[in-house]
Amino acid sequence: MELGGVAAEVRERTSAAFTDRDAERILAAILSSEDIWRVIDLADVPVMALCAALEVMGRAGWVEFTESRIRLTDAGRKLVQGLGIAPARELRCGRCGGRGLELGPVAKIAERFKRIVEARPEAIQEFDQGYVTEESTLYRVAFMWARGDLVGKELLVLGDDDLVSIAAALTGAPRRVVVLDIDERILEFVREVAQGEGLCLEVRHHDLRNPLPAGLLSCFDVFFCDPTESLRGFLAFAGRGISALRAPGCAGYLGLTRREASLLKWQAIQRELLSCGAAITDIRDDFHEYVNWPYIETMRAWDHLPARRVPGRVEPWYRSALIRIELVEPPKAVSERLEGDIFTDPEAATT
Amino acid sequence: MELGGVAAEVRERTSAAFTDRDAERILAAILSSEDIWRVIDLADVPVMALCAALEVMGRAGWVEFTESRIRLTDAGRKLVQGLGIAPARELRCGRCGGRGLELGPVAKIAERFKRIVEARPEAIQEFDQGYVTEESTLYRVAFMWARGDLVGKELLVLGDDDLVSIAAALTGAPRRVVVLDIDERILEFVREVAQGEGLCLEVRHHDLRNPLPAGLLSCFDVFFCDPTESLRGFLAFAGRGISALRAPGCAGYLGLTRREASLLKWQAIQRELLSCGAAITDIRDDFHEYVNWPYIETMRAWDHLPARRVPGRVEPWYRSALIRIELVEPPKAVSERLEGDIFTDPEAATT
Repeated sequence: MELGGVAAEVRERTSAAFTDRDAERILAAILSSEDIWRVIDLADVPVMALCAALEVMGRAGWVEFTESRIRLTDAGRKLVQGLGIAPARELRCGRCGGRGLELGPVAKIAERFKRIVEARPEAIQEFDQGYVTEESTLYRVAFMWARGDLVGKELLVLGDDDLVSIAAALTGAPRRVVVLDIDERILEFVREVAQGEGLCLEVRHHDLRNPLPAGLLSCFDVFFCDPTESLRGFLAFAGRGISALRAPGCAGYLGLTRREASLLKWQAIQRELLSCGAAITDIRDDFHEYVNWPYIETMRAWDHLPARRVPGRVEPWYRSALIRIELVEPPKAVSERLEGDIFTDPEAATT
Repeated sequence: MELGGVAAEVRERTSAAFTDRDAERILAAILSSEDIWRVIDLADVPVMALCAALEVMGRAGWVEFTESRIRLTDAGRKLVQGLGIAPARELRCGRCGGRGLELGPVAKIAERFKRIVEARPEAIQEFDQGYVTEESTLYRVAFMWARGDLVGKELLVLGDDDLVSIAAALTGAPRRVVVLDIDERILEFVREVAQGEGLCLEVRHHDLRNPLPAGLLSCFDVFFCDPTESLRGFLAFAGRGISALRAPGCAGYLGLTRREASLLKWQAIQRELLSCGAAITDIRDDFHEYVNWPYIETMRAWDHLPARRVPGRVEPWYRSALIRIELVEPPKAVSERLEGDIFTDPEAATT
């Protein structure tokens, strides 16, 4: 069997998106590490497709599994040599963690932010939660600062388990910060912090399956949202954010991962963002690293993993890109209520 | 007059793309520096539109010009305070220059590359040339390495005043490197270096206004191109690159600047890239910095600058983003011959 055969079988069993290149990326990852989480991290292939591919490669005799490890067999090693596949290298800058920027003025509030969020609510599966490291949130706010999207701006945060609103407000830079979430625990936490720290934060309960209330439409300079990864859910959440923006020149920030989204899904998302009147100004992959959530053993992908162990709390394998868009036309976003399960699609791994 | 008035007047005189936000970005840049080149660099507004805006702002009494400097007047200062505009901050990581990565294995060939290119042909206006710093080229090759697009791959370089082909070949990583250029000086230089250094480089004369020869279609894993900035020219060059790719999973790299392209043009370009069957996987703005070319005083924008001095050779103000695309569908690129001037459009500044 060749790469193409593996890819075709994976496509049959999962989705139409898996390419020969994805198979190659998985083998390149295994050449760099035998650890299952590291392989997932390095491969940049949706986890569900990766699990299917590993199973097919196992049957083909290319790899073998021992508890949490994946090893190339002699046949596998011969194959990757023949194909000229090299070990995956990240070459991430050791100073900025690959993000490309300094915290700058945001460094001043870093310690205070970290202290405050120690008491944060834990991520729960019901709302597809999973938060990024404190460092990721701080760099995110620094990125907004560097792009001119923070100082003096009105910011809407749609879903805030990452507590971006708190970090942004601590800098004292934005003119206004409004937080929407479906989870009362998060709203309560943000409210308490705002009161205790004397921050001006407006906190509102909102289910993002519903369009924004009229009072939040067309009145923000910037939105931030780390949407759920199903195509339908992602587009709906992004559309809510876009509908909150005032005019051309206003900006939106979105998190998008390769772990639960194929590049075919990325393309569909990008097409939609452009249709809504935006240009994409930045895509910084692996900008965000996630703290492992407590429901890892009940996530959808768990039973599909060919090699398994519970990863440490801060042992990042789930990363996502930071995407910035800027409106170049008046915002065009559909405002319909979404019905039913918005978290699941064939590529979903964590819900 | 308010920001909106300035923006409307600039739109009337230049193109439809200038926003209130662009006016704000120019003022934020002037708050950070009074130097014309630094203002152009920080503002991220197309140079021709920026010149028009500065002229309008000068007539409105917000700014004044003295030789190469731009200063806010008292009225201007009052205005930016009232609007809450903050000084532009880049927050670029000091180690990686904002690129987010290490040179890694590419560091080994850095000195050799720099020594080789000392004798390079100078940039000429006839072909809209202008090359990036050696460091930018080296980081570009490192980025390709990190994305799995270098080792064992077949690479096509479309237009090579940046000498990417030489840096790539020096690493010994690619399986094949083919260089196309219209400029005999560059072809000759690459040929001589290849011979002198024992590098395997295929060098061919080609005018990118013409479709690729049949022998180069659908047979590469990766292309690199830093196209001319007119919309028509950019799309044609990108299309040539895409037509050279084999299949889904193959990747392309493009340089795109804010200096000669509004975000409205970015949007049009992105729409086209998606239509050709690609997803955009990375947009790293300011990845490339350019060495100032010798024809700066005859470039189109020169006479429009309200404050003027010839910048030093390595005093970067012209930067561009590195964009990576990956095919998720079979490549769909139009193959027509382009007629006439492909370098000029209303946003062109350097031709």
